[in-house]
Amino acid sequence: MLTMQDALLALTKYWTDRGCMVVQPFNTEVGAGTLNPATILRVLGPEPWRVAYVEPSVRPDDARYGENPNRLQTHTQFQVVLKPDPGNPQELFLASLEVLGIDIEAHDIRFVEDNWANPATGSWGLGWEVWLDGLEITQFTYFQQAGGMTLDPVSVEITYGIERIMMALQGVSHFKDISYAPGISYGEAFGQAEYEMSRFYLDDADVESQKRLFEEYANEARRMLDARLPVPAHIHVLRCSHTFNILDARGAVSTTERAKAFGRMRGLAREVAQLWAERRTELEHPLGIAELPAAAPEPTEFPVMTGTRQLLFEIGTEEMPPSEVTKTAAAVKAALTEKLAATRLGHGEVTTYATPRRVVAFVAAVQASEPDAERVARGPKKAAAFDAEGNVTKAAAGFARGQGVETSELHDLEVDGVEYVAVTKPDPGRGAAEVLSGLLAEIVSGLRSDKNMRWNDAKLSFTRPVRWLVALLGDQVVPVSVSTLTAGRTTRVHRTAAQPTVEIAAAEGYLDLLRIHGIEADPAKRRQQIVEASERLAAEVNGSVDFAAESALLDQIVNLIEEPTAILGNFSADYLDLPAEILTTVMRKHQRYLPVRGADGELLPHFVAVANGSVKEATVRNGNEGVLRARYEDAAFFWRADLQTTPAAMKEGLDKLAFEQRLGSMAQRAGRIGRIAESLGKIIGLDGEDVKTLQRAAELAKFDLGSQMVVELTSLAGTMAREYARRAGETDAVAQALFDMELPRSAGDPVPSTIPGALLALADRFDLLAGLFAIGAKPTGSSDPFALRRAAAGVVAILREHPELRAITLPVGLSAAAEQIGAQGIEVPAESLADVADFTVRRYEQQVLDRGDDHLQVAAVLPLAEAPATADETLAELQRQVTTPGFAELVAVLQRARRIVPADVAAVYDASKLTEPAELVLHEAVQKVGTAPTALGEFVIATEVLVEPITNFFEEILVMAEDPEVRAARLGLLATIRDFAAPVLDWQALGTSLAGQPVQSERQGE
Amino acid sequence: MLTMQDALLALTKYWTDRGCMVVQPFNTEVGAGTLNPATILRVLGPEPWRVAYVEPSVRPDDARYGENPNRLQTHTQFQVVLKPDPGNPQELFLASLEVLGIDIEAHDIRFVEDNWANPATGSWGLGWEVWLDGLEITQFTYFQQAGGMTLDPVSVEITYGIERIMMALQGVSHFKDISYAPGISYGEAFGQAEYEMSRFYLDDADVESQKRLFEEYANEARRMLDARLPVPAHIHVLRCSHTFNILDARGAVSTTERAKAFGRMRGLAREVAQLWAERRTELEHPLGIAELPAAAPEPTEFPVMTGTRQLLFEIGTEEMPPSEVTKTAAAVKAALTEKLAATRLGHGEVTTYATPRRVVAFVAAVQASEPDAERVARGPKKAAAFDAEGNVTKAAAGFARGQGVETSELHDLEVDGVEYVAVTKPDPGRGAAEVLSGLLAEIVSGLRSDKNMRWNDAKLSFTRPVRWLVALLGDQVVPVSVSTLTAGRTTRVHRTAAQPTVEIAAAEGYLDLLRIHGIEADPAKRRQQIVEASERLAAEVNGSVDFAAESALLDQIVNLIEEPTAILGNFSADYLDLPAEILTTVMRKHQRYLPVRGADGELLPHFVAVANGSVKEATVRNGNEGVLRARYEDAAFFWRADLQTTPAAMKEGLDKLAFEQRLGSMAQRAGRIGRIAESLGKIIGLDGEDVKTLQRAAELAKFDLGSQMVVELTSLAGTMAREYARRAGETDAVAQALFDMELPRSAGDPVPSTIPGALLALADRFDLLAGLFAIGAKPTGSSDPFALRRAAAGVVAILREHPELRAITLPVGLSAAAEQIGAQGIEVPAESLADVADFTVRRYEQQVLDRGDDHLQVAAVLPLAEAPATADETLAELQRQVTTPGFAELVAVLQRARRIVPADVAAVYDASKLTEPAELVLHEAVQKVGTAPTALGEFVIATEVLVEPITNFFEEILVMAEDPEVRAARLGLLATIRDFAAPVLDWQALGTSLAGQPVQSERQGE
Repeated sequence: MLTMQDALLALTKYWTDRGCMVVQPFNTEVGAGTLNPATILRVLGPEPWRVAYVEPSVRPDDARYGENPNRLQTHTQFQVVLKPDPGNPQELFLASLEVLGIDIEAHDIRFVEDNWANPATGSWGLGWEVWLDGLEITQFTYFQQAGGMTLDPVSVEITYGIERIMMALQGVSHFKDISYAPGISYGEAFGQAEYEMSRFYLDDADVESQKRLFEEYANEARRMLDARLPVPAHIHVLRCSHTFNILDARGAVSTTERAKAFGRMRGLAREVAQLWAERRTELEHPLGIAELPAAAPEPTEFPVMTGTRQLLFEIGTEEMPPSEVTKTAAAVKAALTEKLAATRLGHGEVTTYATPRRVVAFVAAVQASEPDAERVARGPKKAAAFDAEGNVTKAAAGFARGQGVETSELHDLEVDGVEYVAVTKPDPGRGAAEVLSGLLAEIVSGLRSDKNMRWNDAKLSFTRPVRWLVALLGDQVVPVSVSTLTAGRTTRVHRTAAQPTVEIAAAEGYLDLLRIHGIEADPAKRRQQIVEASERLAAEVNGSVDFAAESALLDQIVNLIEEPTAILGNFSADYLDLPAEILTTVMRKHQRYLPVRGADGELLPHFVAVANGSVKEATVRNGNEGVLRARYEDAAFFWRADLQTTPAAMKEGLDKLAFEQRLGSMAQRAGRIGRIAESLGKIIGLDGEDVKTLQRAAELAKFDLGSQMVVELTSLAGTMAREYARRAGETDAVAQALFDMELPRSAGDPVPSTIPGALLALADRFDLLAGLFAIGAKPTGSSDPFALRRAAAGVVAILREHPELRAITLPVGLSAAAEQIGAQGIEVPAESLADVADFTVRRYEQQVLDRGDDHLQVAAVLPLAEAPATADETLAELQRQVTTPGFAELVAVLQRARRIVPADVAAVYDASKLTEPAELVLHEAVQKVGTAPTALGEFVIATEVLVEPITNFFEEILVMAEDPEVRAARLGLLATIRDFAAPVLDWQALGTSLAGQPVQSERQGE
Repeated sequence: MLTMQDALLALTKYWTDRGCMVVQPFNTEVGAGTLNPATILRVLGPEPWRVAYVEPSVRPDDARYGENPNRLQTHTQFQVVLKPDPGNPQELFLASLEVLGIDIEAHDIRFVEDNWANPATGSWGLGWEVWLDGLEITQFTYFQQAGGMTLDPVSVEITYGIERIMMALQGVSHFKDISYAPGISYGEAFGQAEYEMSRFYLDDADVESQKRLFEEYANEARRMLDARLPVPAHIHVLRCSHTFNILDARGAVSTTERAKAFGRMRGLAREVAQLWAERRTELEHPLGIAELPAAAPEPTEFPVMTGTRQLLFEIGTEEMPPSEVTKTAAAVKAALTEKLAATRLGHGEVTTYATPRRVVAFVAAVQASEPDAERVARGPKKAAAFDAEGNVTKAAAGFARGQGVETSELHDLEVDGVEYVAVTKPDPGRGAAEVLSGLLAEIVSGLRSDKNMRWNDAKLSFTRPVRWLVALLGDQVVPVSVSTLTAGRTTRVHRTAAQPTVEIAAAEGYLDLLRIHGIEADPAKRRQQIVEASERLAAEVNGSVDFAAESALLDQIVNLIEEPTAILGNFSADYLDLPAEILTTVMRKHQRYLPVRGADGELLPHFVAVANGSVKEATVRNGNEGVLRARYEDAAFFWRADLQTTPAAMKEGLDKLAFEQRLGSMAQRAGRIGRIAESLGKIIGLDGEDVKTLQRAAELAKFDLGSQMVVELTSLAGTMAREYARRAGETDAVAQALFDMELPRSAGDPVPSTIPGALLALADRFDLLAGLFAIGAKPTGSSDPFALRRAAAGVVAILREHPELRAITLPVGLSAAAEQIGAQGIEVPAESLADVADFTVRRYEQQVLDRGDDHLQVAAVLPLAEAPATADETLAELQRQVTTPGFAELVAVLQRARRIVPADVAAVYDASKLTEPAELVLHEAVQKVGTAPTALGEFVIATEVLVEPITNFFEEILVMAEDPEVRAARLGLLATIRDFAAPVLDWQALGTSLAGQPVQSERQGE
């Protein structure tokens, strides 16, 4: 059996044989091999660099006393950096797995999108986590930026997680059982250190001392930068980072402190990077300058074809993120359609397909060439082209010369009634290959995704590297060159295939050729295959997959594989004791497994994993089951640990959990939330059991933030509160309220189903918003560290769904929060509350606009949005009203009244001054309406009687009478109408958008 | 070419193939691989452990900005730990060199004594530095203690110095030129870090911050110990250590701070070790218990021989320290002689020889067996053996039964005139083999050296491991078992020989057999060979070796090799610009090379290195030349740096050099020394040029402590002062005085040749002694950190050699020092000065006893030793006098007079009371002598006339007359004699030791 030390030596040998230099692990704790200067500094600048090394990576937060089978405070990374990108790093990586004895054909090895960013050093890159049968064994990243600097050339970073690989290879389920060296297990060798360092990081490190150390290190880093010494500066940044991690593991970092520390470290790291780069330049780049592949020559000759042919264009990439696969296929289709339309080349339908590794476009019936045409060039006006004698002027002669024709070839051309001279020249159609050559090149260089990267190509940029192109018109290659790439007829199939490249005879047979090599290019077919196979497998265990619920997951899976191989996996039924949300969260989010459910909808101890290609199923099943077991074991560890304690005890832990320096601990925040919720309860007149429920839930509010499960899987906050509360004997209502208070967790998530829960959820968000705005931590630009946008959207969503809480308008809720925050000695200025209210109304606006509502109608109800339910109802009524006859007239007369009356005119008038019949009729009608209702529907009914009188009034009466008293009375009458319409909605905002044409006509007629 | 990374991989492979586990370098800076817990903690306790790892070792003090070709702040160690000692670690090590491509037959590979101690962790071991052609490439140590705990089993630690090995293998002269990886040099890979970290350690690290860090780390280590977590505690001790090293490199640690920091670190390290060992016991030793080889069976059968035979006894060891080689041969000879004498075995001469790897004893003409004899056992007294009836009593019967004989076999035995009963039994002689078997075993188990160690043998202990035994009587093996060893006829020759073990046919041919295998067991022959070869080689370059001057070095060389191969090496004549002392210090002390001098005694650019065995001379020469070049380059680096500055500037550096916290900086001490010297000059009436010389030398006193050369090579203090002073234009007299003031540097070293130098040297030592005694830092037991014993011995040596300084007695000198120390505000109590004087007198006593003087004579002059020259002269006169007739009588009468007179009787008497002739004669004689001179010679002449009168007085006069007045007069007369003899010497101390027998007889007669 390959021991762990054998594995490290084998990898070292493999990579040194491929030109890597070996360095030693860094002698200061690093959280990852990336932070070793051999990576983080060497990726900067133009020098080439290939390095491989082992890096014991220290993550205090992962300390588990050696008890958890999969987590260690120090795990072993094997790190490889290839600078520049060698062009085939994935292939090099796969071959390295073979030296570890991994049969890469038998296993399901996948490159799953995983982008990397290290905020502490201002670094990021795009890449993947590499899965071995569902187990993340390696991080694979194209470094794009480090220390805030854009990297040129780009480096490839490959980070193997050695313990995980060894556990999988050796088939052991606890890291302690890894055979480390002949006769010595990992536990025997390192078990004691693992325990003791866990103790240090989790329990015993002195917090105050670590805080002082952080300062010392940060200051020394600063001094070293000033002394222009990037290497010692970097070491001190690393020390800061490790010290920060210790403080974090000790639970001693508040959100503010975190932001501050990160900002400081990021600033230092950026300076280190910049200084390093400068110093290397000063040293004249001792390792030389890396060279990238040369650009391919531009095609100069194009094959001549006859008849119509099908175009196949394949863009071969490294594994694209699932979300980009579909989008890119659509984008290529659109670009191809548009660009073809700009040519004269005749063609049939454009079709695209995509897999993670290729985007395929077909264009049917492409003509052999463009038809010939003429091109007319307009010259000077005829009047200026010939002189009085009819001789050609200098201007016309010059034009002819410029066009390369004799003046005799000039002819007349009339444009818009003006006569010019012109030249008509033949414009012969280009051959299809020539047309397509440029067009397809443009499509490749125009590829873009949400997040683009660079690789060993000086010009291209896309979501992942483009590695090959196929362009065939029937059986002929279309010469296409773009940057370093040249299109041909060679495609790539599975990397593990005996022959991973395949020649394509002609466009027509391509899809079937791929199928022969186990690749289904059509996503719809892949989806269908997955559904069918999953249903069949689930049925074997009397279960089924709820595809409606798993639609988003299915989309992902379809785009993660080129050939679906669904595999039914099992897990121990013991884990079904865990709450189902935990199990499905892990399956979906971490593993992309489809949960299998029984007839009653309950989870069964099975899952469907979808592998890529023709793997050895038993091996892959076994691997995936092991991964899920490890993850469930992890979760069960927290679960059991949490069940050892009580909600009250967990809640005590909130004292130690800092929230925000000025706003205090999480315990203080939870206390405020409870009190705010209770005062909101009084406002809505909460009664009966709900009062008790709210009181108890308020006492326990947010207790699960003190549970290990939620510390680990934050998305389970609320879910765990409900579970733990139930198990601790709380009533179902209390448990549900605690669950509800975390809702909605994101846009589209359900809102609280219970009133106590809704009150707590509102209180939670009002506290967050009022508190952070009060201390000036309002979101700016893309920076929203406390997710205040989401909180405000949550408030809106809850109030929209719960009209019975209408009394809790935004100002009412925020005031209740402000009172509690104020009681803590923090002043909440009125402007700040107004600011939050406005900020929240914007979220309402966004929500309704996002569902596609007319923006003018939305604007009309915004003044009501401090009570979102009211705004919603009004908006709905408005949308009904605009389809009714007469409403447009009502709007028109109200708008007209409002337009004509100056804003400072009050709604009072001396009726005795009104003498004309039309004005008297209106006066009477107004009197008759009396006080108009504010709900739109009722208002419309109530004011129906006014439309005609107002219309007549405007037709017959000159409002601006010469007699001031008469004028005042008339304006007052209209102001009265204006004012009783005002609370209903913003009539003016409706503008001319109403579907009812009468308004439109009326206005056009004005 | 083997790159450095290849070398590291090759060593890793070699050692893992031999059962070593590989671990990673530690992720906290360590000064050596030893401090990685994989060594320093794992060597503790009974668990087996085999490990190999690379360790980049950080030594801030070695930082040289990358400029020095051989020194790096971080150098790469390859560390191997074998626990327990596998029995053949040297052989395993040598084979590992072969995987690096080292032809171990061609090179001169030697194990040169180098014991290791790490005061910071309370650890030590014995072993060697391994030389490759004079280059230290590896440290090889048998760990004996770690963290203050004795190790059982003992671990073998092998530490390769990789950069040095690579430089030698690749033939490059600067570490930057090492080929680290294909196409990448060491300098390209690590040059920038080397420079920048040098800057940090030497110039830029913030001293105050580092001091604070030290405290933080030490406190955290303390807390972790209290939490019973040895691993994090150890990490914090390492951080302390590194931080301390940084402070040291920054020149920010005073002697006191150093002692304090070391004490603290040592204490913590010991606790860490103890706690680790305890924890491992609590964990029940997860790796099991190491097993040592079983004891060999005791021999039970012995060969029967006839005739006389030669005994060969060879004790095979690993390389003994040179000083132990000769001593062990002598000890074995003495033990063998003594133990043989305790047997009845007839034998001829005992001869011993020794090399570093063997002690050989021959005993000529050993008889085949002991002669038969009888053994008489004495029983009860005859009176008690038989009752009245002549029957045997119970007592006698019991005796007989105990002896295993019948009572009839009892016979009479008279002892000292008393009659006993006894039994006589035959005592048959044992065969020679049986006799020798036990005796030789005892010799092996009785081997002892100054510093003994343990290895994989449960019982033996010696300077280095004993690995084999040969015991032959003629051609027969003598069965000898001692612990795990069994003697045979197999010896070992050079480890690099094709066949490293050789069978010995018989004792007689042994020496020649060894010679055939290239080993000369006879040290005298080896010495002769070295001398002859060196002379021949030196003559080739018209030079010679001053063997008289190099005698001690030659002794060392003889004991460093088994077969001398003298090789003439050369160095660049450019280095002759350096002071010769530097060159020879390096040659002798570091390299054991014999300097080659021209006819005029000047150094030539050549040296003789003596290799072991038949190496490839060109290779070895080349290697040794490279090593010397590197060392000279190092020295030249300091030399040039120092010459950039001036003595005055260097002296300013002394301000920053702490001496002792209370006694101030080195600059303050140098100031005091100058002032003390000047006041001593006044005491002796210094005049003329000497006054000016002293004044100037006092100004510059100790300036060279601020030079880089002396910081590096402390033993050159004074030497460099003279050089630098001369070059700075000081007079020769001043330069010489500055040199002289550091003399004597050790026992036997010359004392200052000039008076100004002597005054400064005395002042230096008086200041040191008075100051440190005053602050209570007097040496205790073996602890003498300030080397006060050496200082006091130096005072004595100077004053003995310079009688003209007699006015400077110890109290006078110490008072002068006390005055200056007092001026600095430190009180120097009188008792403390008396204490120093007494301490210094003890050194005088030691010096004269060490040269073999009679201890009573020495005691007699000790009262004079406050002026050591006077004591010396008196002692010399005393030694002359004791051979003269009459002196003994003088002593006797003086002693008698002193004995009879009570101490409180004064030297006055009423002469009129004296009436008896004998007392009158004495009175007159005393009057005639008048005031006796105090110098012994003169005193003897002057008092010659008293001997007879005193003798007569004692014979005829009863001193204790009944008449009190008479008695008083007689006692007064004798007291007068006593008192004028008293200042001459301590007559009473002479006791009865005088060689002159008369005194003896006279006393016997009393």
